[in-house]
Amino acid sequence: MAGMPKAPPVLARVYRGPRVESLHRGSIAVVDERGSLLAGCGDPKAPIYVRSAAKPFQAIPLLEAGGDKKFRLTDDEVALLCASHGGEPRHAQTAERILRKAGFRVTDLACGAHAPMHEPSARALARRGTAPTALHNNCSGKHAGMLLACRLLDVPADGYVDPAHPLQRRIRTVLARYAGVAESEITVAVDGCSLPVFRLPLSGLACAYARLFASRVAGETPAATSARARIVRAMWRSPFMVAGTGRFTTDFLAAGGGRWIGKEGAEGLYAVGLAPSGRIRQAVGVAFKIEDGSARPRDAVTLDVLARLGRLPEPARRALDTWAVPVVRNACGSDVGRIEAEAPIVRFPAKRK
Amino acid sequence: MAGMPKAPPVLARVYRGPRVESLHRGSIAVVDERGSLLAGCGDPKAPIYVRSAAKPFQAIPLLEAGGDKKFRLTDDEVALLCASHGGEPRHAQTAERILRKAGFRVTDLACGAHAPMHEPSARALARRGTAPTALHNNCSGKHAGMLLACRLLDVPADGYVDPAHPLQRRIRTVLARYAGVAESEITVAVDGCSLPVFRLPLSGLACAYARLFASRVAGETPAATSARARIVRAMWRSPFMVAGTGRFTTDFLAAGGGRWIGKEGAEGLYAVGLAPSGRIRQAVGVAFKIEDGSARPRDAVTLDVLARLGRLPEPARRALDTWAVPVVRNACGSDVGRIEAEAPIVRFPAKRK
Repeated sequence: MAGMPKAPPVLARVYRGPRVESLHRGSIAVVDERGSLLAGCGDPKAPIYVRSAAKPFQAIPLLEAGGDKKFRLTDDEVALLCASHGGEPRHAQTAERILRKAGFRVTDLACGAHAPMHEPSARALARRGTAPTALHNNCSGKHAGMLLACRLLDVPADGYVDPAHPLQRRIRTVLARYAGVAESEITVAVDGCSLPVFRLPLSGLACAYARLFASRVAGETPAATSARARIVRAMWRSPFMVAGTGRFTTDFLAAGGGRWIGKEGAEGLYAVGLAPSGRIRQAVGVAFKIEDGSARPRDAVTLDVLARLGRLPEPARRALDTWAVPVVRNACGSDVGRIEAEAPIVRFPAKRK
Repeated sequence: MAGMPKAPPVLARVYRGPRVESLHRGSIAVVDERGSLLAGCGDPKAPIYVRSAAKPFQAIPLLEAGGDKKFRLTDDEVALLCASHGGEPRHAQTAERILRKAGFRVTDLACGAHAPMHEPSARALARRGTAPTALHNNCSGKHAGMLLACRLLDVPADGYVDPAHPLQRRIRTVLARYAGVAESEITVAVDGCSLPVFRLPLSGLACAYARLFASRVAGETPAATSARARIVRAMWRSPFMVAGTGRFTTDFLAAGGGRWIGKEGAEGLYAVGLAPSGRIRQAVGVAFKIEDGSARPRDAVTLDVLARLGRLPEPARRALDTWAVPVVRNACGSDVGRIEAEAPIVRFPAKRK
């Protein structure tokens, strides 16, 4: 086993009856807006693909260029730019409305079609014999926003998913700034929706989420500062648009009342930005990656980390109670087990990440 | 970290583009029919819930009592007793035919309804506005067989899923014998389909699969020997019934041509029985558990373990090629990554498990 990296710690245990059946390991990074690694476990600097946790940053170029006013974007619409939504009728309709604001059509979306993640919506489509379209893709808002950005920045919309497209290069620059990493440190592969997916240290993702709430970030324009404030506001004001019915992220955003935003990414990723609060004058970001890529322990781990950081006030804890210890049910609906998170973060002495 | 068990090794890596995005760890046990632990990795004696890998053993009481002749069971029907099937029309029809042989009805099944695992079949039901029934539950064959066993053994069918029911107690005795563990070592919780689920060492599950192919097992009746031979034969002769369209287990059984049987269990479990072959005069069983409960690396890990044991002949390897390195696709159907198994089993010096 020489040279083998140590396994990250167990973050959640899946019980069947009174005994553990499966385990989920992972790494956690807690970083402040200056980029200092405050706490964590496992390998907080492990390179990870940021997947859909990149969405708030992928929306910044459109808003920084004035897209907010130009296209009179509502909170619902801005929130949908950052969404991994359930493909419910309101999500699909909102994506279509965004497209129409710049004269685009569903066929201009390059994200591909998949059945709505929200199962009752998927079943309703199937019952009507209607095939899902790209509007139902959980990334349709992000893609629609990118088409608007192409129009506004006067770059061709054709090939907007290409990593070499000017918009994608711009997004990489934005992400590097907020993550506090060099652009050359970010590598690229293909995401679930055909867009570039960015690989950077987990601590960089946590830093980026902290900086969504920072008073100022070195190198950003005043327009970028307003853009990210607008994004944060839209996400917590329109939490339904960011995820949907029966989804943790929607309830989590609603319970935060502006104190935090949170966003999941595929393959077991979650990122939270925490606003400065009382004596804590720095914004803080939390990011974790479940080693095996599973989504099921994510919600419970998020709440456990916030509780350990002393950042989960009692009313929010109560409102999110059902997400803290998810019940495992069988086909008959009987309660046969549960998921218990226990995220062993340790605080680090002050130093730069 | 004192007292923390060591993490099991990585069995599979999930790549996105050229880089690893997620890992799956796990334990493997390779055991011969005498119960000797031949090879493995991680913790081969870790207690695990055997889930649906128990199905061949759950079918033994019915066949041992003469159910085969009494109900004139076909290969398809016996195979379905051992299935985690896709709920395709042929599966549901066969389950219903089994029920009718003893005058039972769909409403007698206690497994609960869920949409067919086979997605085109699920969509077809939804399109017709037809709700799935218990016949579509992947366990319907097992449950139907248990109802027949109740009739034959002259015990009440009511409450057949209760761990204290005579049939369930009988199944526990059977499983203990083949697994080579004391009945008192087996603990019980509730499975996905409401039946008792058994917890025993991973090496015990491997032993049980070896013994499906053994010439004789201490303590079994001649009727039980015939019963397990009948089950093995039906599984490889009717591989479609054991799983279904697009399923690894169906292709794996078909490619084995009687040399092996294999069966998955929920939460990342797989078990294989290998017939004696040439100079290898003992039947061998392989069982592994993915620590995090994921199903996605299972097929590739199964093939990698068999190849390392020298038990995957070239024609079978070629026939199962697409399962060996599963491709990860995105919503547009593009190839964005792959799963690579590398199961680091080591051979143990000869001793009893």
